[in-house]
Amino acid sequence: MASDAKAQTEVKEPELDLDIDGDEGSVEGNSRWYTDTVTGAELADYAPVKGCMVIRPYGYALWENIKEALDGMIKETGHSNAYFPLFIPESFLKKEAEHVEGFAPECAVVTHGGGKKLEEPLIVRPTSETIINYMFAKWVHSWRDLPLLINQWANVVRWEMRTRLFLRTAEFLWQEGHTAHATEEEAEAEAKTMLECYRKLAEDWLALPVLTGEKTERERFAGAVRTYCIEAMMRDGKALQAGTSHFLGQNFAKAFDIKFQSQAGQLEYAWQTSWGVSTRLIGAVVLGHGDEKGLILPPRIAPIQTVVVPIYKTDAEKETVLSSCRELETALKAAGIRVHVDDRDNHTPGFKFNHWELRGVPLRINIGPRDVAGNVVEIARRDNQEKMRGVAREGLPATIKDLLETVQKAIFERALKFRRDNTVKATTYEEMKTILKDKSVFVETHWDGTSEDEGKIKEECKATIRCLPFAFEPVEGTCMYTGRKTTRRVIFAKAY
Amino acid sequence: MASDAKAQTEVKEPELDLDIDGDEGSVEGNSRWYTDTVTGAELADYAPVKGCMVIRPYGYALWENIKEALDGMIKETGHSNAYFPLFIPESFLKKEAEHVEGFAPECAVVTHGGGKKLEEPLIVRPTSETIINYMFAKWVHSWRDLPLLINQWANVVRWEMRTRLFLRTAEFLWQEGHTAHATEEEAEAEAKTMLECYRKLAEDWLALPVLTGEKTERERFAGAVRTYCIEAMMRDGKALQAGTSHFLGQNFAKAFDIKFQSQAGQLEYAWQTSWGVSTRLIGAVVLGHGDEKGLILPPRIAPIQTVVVPIYKTDAEKETVLSSCRELETALKAAGIRVHVDDRDNHTPGFKFNHWELRGVPLRINIGPRDVAGNVVEIARRDNQEKMRGVAREGLPATIKDLLETVQKAIFERALKFRRDNTVKATTYEEMKTILKDKSVFVETHWDGTSEDEGKIKEECKATIRCLPFAFEPVEGTCMYTGRKTTRRVIFAKAY
Repeated sequence: MASDAKAQTEVKEPELDLDIDGDEGSVEGNSRWYTDTVTGAELADYAPVKGCMVIRPYGYALWENIKEALDGMIKETGHSNAYFPLFIPESFLKKEAEHVEGFAPECAVVTHGGGKKLEEPLIVRPTSETIINYMFAKWVHSWRDLPLLINQWANVVRWEMRTRLFLRTAEFLWQEGHTAHATEEEAEAEAKTMLECYRKLAEDWLALPVLTGEKTERERFAGAVRTYCIEAMMRDGKALQAGTSHFLGQNFAKAFDIKFQSQAGQLEYAWQTSWGVSTRLIGAVVLGHGDEKGLILPPRIAPIQTVVVPIYKTDAEKETVLSSCRELETALKAAGIRVHVDDRDNHTPGFKFNHWELRGVPLRINIGPRDVAGNVVEIARRDNQEKMRGVAREGLPATIKDLLETVQKAIFERALKFRRDNTVKATTYEEMKTILKDKSVFVETHWDGTSEDEGKIKEECKATIRCLPFAFEPVEGTCMYTGRKTTRRVIFAKAY
Repeated sequence: MASDAKAQTEVKEPELDLDIDGDEGSVEGNSRWYTDTVTGAELADYAPVKGCMVIRPYGYALWENIKEALDGMIKETGHSNAYFPLFIPESFLKKEAEHVEGFAPECAVVTHGGGKKLEEPLIVRPTSETIINYMFAKWVHSWRDLPLLINQWANVVRWEMRTRLFLRTAEFLWQEGHTAHATEEEAEAEAKTMLECYRKLAEDWLALPVLTGEKTERERFAGAVRTYCIEAMMRDGKALQAGTSHFLGQNFAKAFDIKFQSQAGQLEYAWQTSWGVSTRLIGAVVLGHGDEKGLILPPRIAPIQTVVVPIYKTDAEKETVLSSCRELETALKAAGIRVHVDDRDNHTPGFKFNHWELRGVPLRINIGPRDVAGNVVEIARRDNQEKMRGVAREGLPATIKDLLETVQKAIFERALKFRRDNTVKATTYEEMKTILKDKSVFVETHWDGTSEDEGKIKEECKATIRCLPFAFEPVEGTCMYTGRKTTRRVIFAKAY
């Protein structure tokens, strides 16, 4: 009986159909790879509510690590966390004209509470500019109250038609920063400062190189004067917007009457910003690093940085090997390494290798009886499948720490090279159309078109302007679409 | 002009009308003290949505410290954090009969999404047993999948008629643990383990002594077999339920079909628990320690543990004193102390003293020119108003660390003594009625009544059975209400 139960519990690891490297004939294949990887690695699961997901412990631990890194940067730059209500009176949303136009179609609406119909429907926050700025108006009176630098970690709801785990879900988790300043310059600098935090988060923690730049009017946040963004390239050549920071000018200050007495004694409207990143970043990590075996997690955010797999046949071997694994676990933990010993006795080492590879654990340490005898271990890197045999047990915590740093850099460099290899220049629209027909790449081109032009190109090529990268110096050229002279260059790409 | 602006920015500290120590003639006075303190100390503010609050940075920092302490304990005891959807299909709530009866009247209902009427209304989670257990049923197949130990930090919504900041709000933040086990014993032990974590959180971190015990049937969680709780006494003698842990038996497992194959090969229903504490704990800290000057915060959770107030008259003094304050700030930070230098130049030292006393900062260091010259500082304790003059600057970080520990213990001891002084025994109902007419205390008494009896007593005395304390050994006696022989003793009290 017991063995029956055991057989039944052998977890079926999904057999991944992995065509991640951009066979554009099978976007469907890539989509399936993504879903299989996210669910197979137990990052998330589908919820019984349309468009919603359950973030499972492994996915949530990843989010906690990302959150901790960013929260540190948010606080270091002088911001405080706070918490504002989930519900927003419908009338609030309508106070900023562009804002309501952008968000109204995506709203979930509470019409009943405590068994009664509400006098005014409540919107489940899709973002909190309106309710936060209502409060700012109560708190800001003088230049001494500024800058007001607030962040909140919260859930938000946007009723999306097509959803994908982490990338686009009806409910997601995020942080949203909201600030008020005495001058335009200061607010502008704030928007850039936070974009730089996002760049650091993406590059230094998630190992994802990003382009920083400004959005065109068409892709701007509803209610913003300027929207800045970080854009990453996924392993299939598509772009993913990983974070945005908005300079709001005085739009919301005027809508919510946030006025202050300046040092010169004048009553003035505040200048504002807002900025956010979400659980979408997890999708970016999956699509930005993964391969046919599953996830590849950057060591700095990996919930488990090193897994230890004991290898034995006899009971005597088991005892020796497991006790060696435990000693190593203690030593690695003491060195601040997130380690897990896979001591399950109902799975083979081969099964465990696949299990942890699918979950993207950066390093695996295999320990068998001969390793114990020789005072060595075998180390396998997840990112490049490299195996190191006979690594000295002495000083292993330091070896592992160095290796984790090496892996962190290696996957960043790999992603950077991939982006370079998949960024091409186009000088005519025909050229760009041909390029994007065959594959997904970043197309660098001169641009002087309108929002309508962008709309037409999106229909024809499925590509949009991801941003006007800050790194692009003005260079005289010809707009590939209108033929007009311009110094402005942009990146076109298909995007998630 | 500039001086006009300055005059206008002088913040008005609320003048507190403080009658906290339980003049029962003026519950209203106490209620006002509470609201004035919470808003005056900038812990929270009223939101423009009925029954909702805004948790301001100082209040949220307090919550972050509480959360970090508890999250550590939750993880040490083997639980993982995860995240489940905000929305629950209406039909889910109805699957457990008692559960829906308990929560349906408090629900907020989403009827429209993305501009359309929903086929099935969605409930904004009042608690997540139903949706989490729906997922558990998908994940649990074998005894090897158990125990399943999950926690989530989330916002929940309960449409309350009468709300009070932190104590009872339509939306609040909390953690809710949900676990599934192979045996009844294990689930029962889990419910007790988590209650013990809550006791530690309350006593070791919040400095609030609590009674641990079991609720009567009348006060039990809707859907639980047994509800355990921690109950604290506030400074006005009333009780505040600070956390609950529920043994759910197989109620939800049966409603959601959470079955597993046991080691013996049988298909069995899982045994479960759930447990939670919320932002209500902040209300408990306010009411459990505060005095006529405002908050008294336990050092271990205080956002600012020590404030440094520079005292000077001339510009030369200012320079000397401020640079001394900055040096001290660096030294204290290096020692891991949360310190803030109040260098505002538009407020007097006296204003600053009141400002930080209202906010409950445990220690204040005053530094004037003579202190700098003498290489000493003055330290003022918030809890007992004691002042220490001429404290040696050398070794000050260690002095402060010790003092913070001393204060932490002192306010716990003060609260414990207060509870002892305000716990009385009653042997007849008449006696209890007389006691509770004059004041709010804990009444210890033998009890063998029914839920209906409890209801009548609540109507007549406004008091309820807070719990059957674990600490009470069975002692032969007579039920004060029914006159029946019983060994069961309970605590009656008026409660928040």
